[in-house]
Amino acid sequence: MTLAIVGLGAIGGSFAMRLMKAGYDSIIGIDTDQDTVSYALEAGIIHTGSTSAKDLLSEADVIMLTLYPSQVPAFIEQHRHLFKKNVVLTDVTGIKTSIIRSVHAVLPPDADFVFAHPMRGSEKKGISGASVDKFEGANALITPTDRNKEENLQLIESLYRSAGFETLTRVTPEKHDEQIAYVSQLMHALSVSVVNSEQASEDTLLFAGNSFKELTRIADINVDLWSELFLYNRTALLESIDAFEQELNSLKKALRSWDEVEPDSSADLKAFLSRSRNQRREWY
Amino acid sequence: MTLAIVGLGAIGGSFAMRLMKAGYDSIIGIDTDQDTVSYALEAGIIHTGSTSAKDLLSEADVIMLTLYPSQVPAFIEQHRHLFKKNVVLTDVTGIKTSIIRSVHAVLPPDADFVFAHPMRGSEKKGISGASVDKFEGANALITPTDRNKEENLQLIESLYRSAGFETLTRVTPEKHDEQIAYVSQLMHALSVSVVNSEQASEDTLLFAGNSFKELTRIADINVDLWSELFLYNRTALLESIDAFEQELNSLKKALRSWDEVEPDSSADLKAFLSRSRNQRREWY
Repeated sequence: MTLAIVGLGAIGGSFAMRLMKAGYDSIIGIDTDQDTVSYALEAGIIHTGSTSAKDLLSEADVIMLTLYPSQVPAFIEQHRHLFKKNVVLTDVTGIKTSIIRSVHAVLPPDADFVFAHPMRGSEKKGISGASVDKFEGANALITPTDRNKEENLQLIESLYRSAGFETLTRVTPEKHDEQIAYVSQLMHALSVSVVNSEQASEDTLLFAGNSFKELTRIADINVDLWSELFLYNRTALLESIDAFEQELNSLKKALRSWDEVEPDSSADLKAFLSRSRNQRREWY
Repeated sequence: MTLAIVGLGAIGGSFAMRLMKAGYDSIIGIDTDQDTVSYALEAGIIHTGSTSAKDLLSEADVIMLTLYPSQVPAFIEQHRHLFKKNVVLTDVTGIKTSIIRSVHAVLPPDADFVFAHPMRGSEKKGISGASVDKFEGANALITPTDRNKEENLQLIESLYRSAGFETLTRVTPEKHDEQIAYVSQLMHALSVSVVNSEQASEDTLLFAGNSFKELTRIADINVDLWSELFLYNRTALLESIDAFEQELNSLKKALRSWDEVEPDSSADLKAFLSRSRNQRREWY
């Protein structure tokens, strides 16, 4: 089986390294950056490589696109004439319903696209952010569609296991987007809003402890990628923000209704905090 | 100089351990829990100890109250008849203007209360959460009042340095409360609201990555302590939430105004994310 990885960044590069180590005997690397391709060839993490998809893509049985969401349908449109018959494709993007819609609009009928989401991001861009153990013990989500053949779903799942992933879960694209909006996108939306607050100043770090440092870590964001993730999933993200705001409003109400001389008037706040403490402990 | 530490929990216990090691020759430990006092005596982290303040408090030149905010003025009211003349007191609470007001209402005229805030919290309660290096390299804030003598401010600052603190900053109580509302209380308000969201479920951890785990860490909250911190600083906290909500609203507006076919319509979102990325990089 010949695998082409399109995009040798932190994610694509890590897949190449680990699958090479796992014994895959034909890995093609495609990246628009010549230095990246040369490095990947010299480091022995791909068998062949090119800056141009058209040189090698027609040999691939499986094509993994480690591209930004907007690039995935565009790549297919530009290169589908090169696809081997019955090629299997897969992506690594963090959004699903909107990309499935735009991919299906341009995908050749015989090609099977298995949509997947490796759950390990990277702060580092480019192949220098890749590592052979990046996906060790990580989770991944697979979002089957009506067009997928079971054997191809299993093919991608086995590729993920070879790359070190531990837990693979199949979910609907809708549930994927709703839950990712909550557990990932909302976190990023809160973090960037905290950092952009008018209360931020040069003195902030005099006052800040671990919680501020941790919560704002993800505000050092990849602007181009996250713009796309937010926008292509905006319906689910806006719903997630709404659900969050309901809780923040309950908290504000509990603060406002407090009366210092009434001992019981902190009961609402305590119940609110107890609920989150118990849920957090249940999770971790 | 005889130092009395009232409350041998994670904070008070850590002060005792480190100041004993630093050579303080007379440390009194007071805690309502007999096991805690016995442990502290056996472990050699206090010289004398009691479950009752009245046995030993009159010997103290300096009294450090490591109590919850509401307990600080109450303790003074109940024990001020035991205070040595010109005693110096200090607290470790994370709120200042409201506690200063209530302490000053009950403080004997000759006593000097230096309000301080060691910036290192603890997830662990009780003396088992104490450690000798807990404050190594930590920050602390001192909020001088008109009633403080300079020599007593310096006395507490030198005690903090002996305990391992690195950066001591004097700020006004108002600035303290405003900035702590932002960098600490807001983080906790967001974290508990995320966890309480109706989107939380048993399946959540299938989808969650590091950002969710990190951002919700502090939702496993000490309910009694944080109820007090939130409520006694509610004005500043509500202002901090307002400032945050302004930014979240800008983000929502940028999401809603996006038009997929207009390439430039993501410019507002990109500018928003770039701003937070740049600020975060400036800080850390």
